Amino acid sequence: MSHDIRRLSERKRRGEPLSAEEIGWLVEAYTAGVIDDAPMAAWLMAVCCSGMTDEETWLLTDAMARSGEMLDLSGLGRPTVDKHSTGGVGDKVTLVAAPIAAACGACVAKMSGRGLGHTGGTIDKLEAVPGLRTDLSAERFLAQAGEVGLVVAAQSASLAPADGKMYALRDATGTVDSRALIAASIMSKKIAAGSAAIVLDVTVGSGAFMRSGDEARALAELMVSVGRRAGRRVSAVLTDMNAPLGRAVGNAVEVTEAVAVLRGGGPDDVREVSLTIAAWMLVAAGIPASFAEARSMAEKTLASGGAVEALAAMIEAQGGDADALDRPMLGHSARETGEWRAEQSGVISRVDARGVGYAALAAGAGRRRKGDDIDPAAGVCLLRVEGDEVEDGEAVAQVMAGSPDGLADALAELDRAIVISDELPPTRALIIDTIPPEDGA
Amino acid sequence: MSHDIRRLSERKRRGEPLSAEEIGWLVEAYTAGVIDDAPMAAWLMAVCCSGMTDEETWLLTDAMARSGEMLDLSGLGRPTVDKHSTGGVGDKVTLVAAPIAAACGACVAKMSGRGLGHTGGTIDKLEAVPGLRTDLSAERFLAQAGEVGLVVAAQSASLAPADGKMYALRDATGTVDSRALIAASIMSKKIAAGSAAIVLDVTVGSGAFMRSGDEARALAELMVSVGRRAGRRVSAVLTDMNAPLGRAVGNAVEVTEAVAVLRGGGPDDVREVSLTIAAWMLVAAGIPASFAEARSMAEKTLASGGAVEALAAMIEAQGGDADALDRPMLGHSARETGEWRAEQSGVISRVDARGVGYAALAAGAGRRRKGDDIDPAAGVCLLRVEGDEVEDGEAVAQVMAGSPDGLADALAELDRAIVISDELPPTRALIIDTIPPEDGA
Repeated sequence: MSHDIRRLSERKRRGEPLSAEEIGWLVEAYTAGVIDDAPMAAWLMAVCCSGMTDEETWLLTDAMARSGEMLDLSGLGRPTVDKHSTGGVGDKVTLVAAPIAAACGACVAKMSGRGLGHTGGTIDKLEAVPGLRTDLSAERFLAQAGEVGLVVAAQSASLAPADGKMYALRDATGTVDSRALIAASIMSKKIAAGSAAIVLDVTVGSGAFMRSGDEARALAELMVSVGRRAGRRVSAVLTDMNAPLGRAVGNAVEVTEAVAVLRGGGPDDVREVSLTIAAWMLVAAGIPASFAEARSMAEKTLASGGAVEALAAMIEAQGGDADALDRPMLGHSARETGEWRAEQSGVISRVDARGVGYAALAAGAGRRRKGDDIDPAAGVCLLRVEGDEVEDGEAVAQVMAGSPDGLADALAELDRAIVISDELPPTRALIIDTIPPEDGA
Repeated sequence: MSHDIRRLSERKRRGEPLSAEEIGWLVEAYTAGVIDDAPMAAWLMAVCCSGMTDEETWLLTDAMARSGEMLDLSGLGRPTVDKHSTGGVGDKVTLVAAPIAAACGACVAKMSGRGLGHTGGTIDKLEAVPGLRTDLSAERFLAQAGEVGLVVAAQSASLAPADGKMYALRDATGTVDSRALIAASIMSKKIAAGSAAIVLDVTVGSGAFMRSGDEARALAELMVSVGRRAGRRVSAVLTDMNAPLGRAVGNAVEVTEAVAVLRGGGPDDVREVSLTIAAWMLVAAGIPASFAEARSMAEKTLASGGAVEALAAMIEAQGGDADALDRPMLGHSARETGEWRAEQSGVISRVDARGVGYAALAAGAGRRRKGDDIDPAAGVCLLRVEGDEVEDGEAVAQVMAGSPDGLADALAELDRAIVISDELPPTRALIIDTIPPEDGA
């Protein structure tokens, strides 16, 4: 049946829920070009203004997931588990948690995004490894999942094409900020990608898209409920993103930091969040019986070196040079480097995640617009973090930039991001909240 | 200064008022094609959802009025007055009130619209007069205003082009229903058309766009305040539009009915609303001191035949054949005619204006889509009206249609529109409310 998109927008605006048939038509007609961008943008704004019920959000997600290819991972012979982060600054958790889960016997077949705005993306980070390809065909993706048990590829255009088209329109029309639309966008891709289990890392704080714990919790609950409606085992972890995760923010530097964690070193916060996410991935995959067991399994695997081997095997399967993991900055070098120094003695009371994200973006690590080139060597390394005492003139952060202007802009961003005073920063829990899998933990 | 339309939409969505500079940029950039349809549609929906302050509505109206040519009628030597109706069924008030006001010494230089949906448009009605042209250049429009004192032309594309483009987008995207956008659309055209005084006929009821008196009153107050900000003398009259105005609904038939009123006959309701509107036009133009004086002046002019002469002079100045006014249906004849008959004896308790509008539309008097052809002979004539007693089998309405299908569809619409029962219809005031010009009455 055909509908009039204008009537659906008017009804949505008045807060009326739409039917499965109406939502299905809308997604199909927009993807096929039967509905133009302008009336679709008005509908999206009506959703931003009036919201959607959980039922409508599920119907939208399902229609978007079914708009393209649906991968079937059931024949791989191992429990499949996917992981998604709602984005952050210095968020290299996938690079640590996915190899741990794979080394523990899960099959991690994951599609990731690129960075946009102040947040980085796993695909950009992985592409800092020389030779590594992320544009895998569905066949190659499935084959690597079966053979290596770990594959991280760029989002395929053939999966959930409705999301690709709707996301571009939302980005162009100021209709990004809607819990229902965010949940449907994320979950439609995860559902189409085929894993039986999904763990969501929902970030909260200045460097995240969700600024408050309440917002993040509501988004997490919505995504979990949508995933369960699709028959997946889903859990979510709310993690703090007020300060960058770890000390490295950029592309090559983040891979290097992730490898340090996989080798038993690296910053505690990256290790803690990654082990937690890896453990929930194992629980969701049904490998151990409890979170405590899973956590202990993850720690042992990390200590054994199995996880770093899993990462190396994945890199090689994707054409990358695993030896680069042993070179500083994966062998890249920045055109310009500089240091941000303390202008007074005191304690670092704030390192604002978003501000550091902007600094890395200014240095050349990210994109101002979709399609911009990024510099794998660009980024920021924090030499000191929140709570550290510093002396006047001491170097607090190192900046690697692609140009003198980029360096200057990045240092100016750090002027706004880093606060030195005589007050200690507030103590914040790294793991804020958890939604375990329905019958898990 | 340039802005990001997406940020303006996000702010509007959150209910934040935009500045004069931002609204001015938005209108200019959209009219110039710098802003695409999709982000503009999202902004319009944000306005539909979150509204605009009166100040913002004025700023939007002013920017839209200034987007094209602004006519200057100050050199015509006579007080200029314009009139606008928010639309109705059987609404031929312009064809009666404007000639009366012109015959009383006002200069009525008016641009009118075409019918769309269930409502008719003055331009379609006038074009039923053989030879009459409504596509006048600005020069010819001004010349006729000066020479004849009465001109009714089709809306010129060079006046308020922002409105033309925004209205088409609103129509295509389900973003029509916003008091601020409706007020800005109407008033930007009236302000650009240059008359010093403006009388607004705000219709209320099933056949109008405003269904409730509160909605209509709020729209009227907003339009009056916007017009006054533009330095015009503005008043508004709220009139009932639950039943069609008069007995004729269509194009040629409505001109014929208007002429009957101008000659002292015709239905009482058309006469009453037209005299009221004409009197307020005279008060707004500053011709008499009080409404009572203006009303008496209008009645005398009607009785003297001066008004019908003014209409004939206008028709001739626009190339039309004024002799046609003496021919039944202006000389047109319908391909198909039929009658809607009572299927029981009783009293006519309801003649739904919107339903009769749909019947006339089905018969061929209106357009389902912009650009559709209309049939000047098509329409509905009510032989009996609300409150009349009828016998089983008696003819209640006559239908003139362009095709057998149109006739059948129109009769079916009348089945829904006309209710015969044993209950008298509710008594409704024809003139519901009035907002006099600031220092008028």
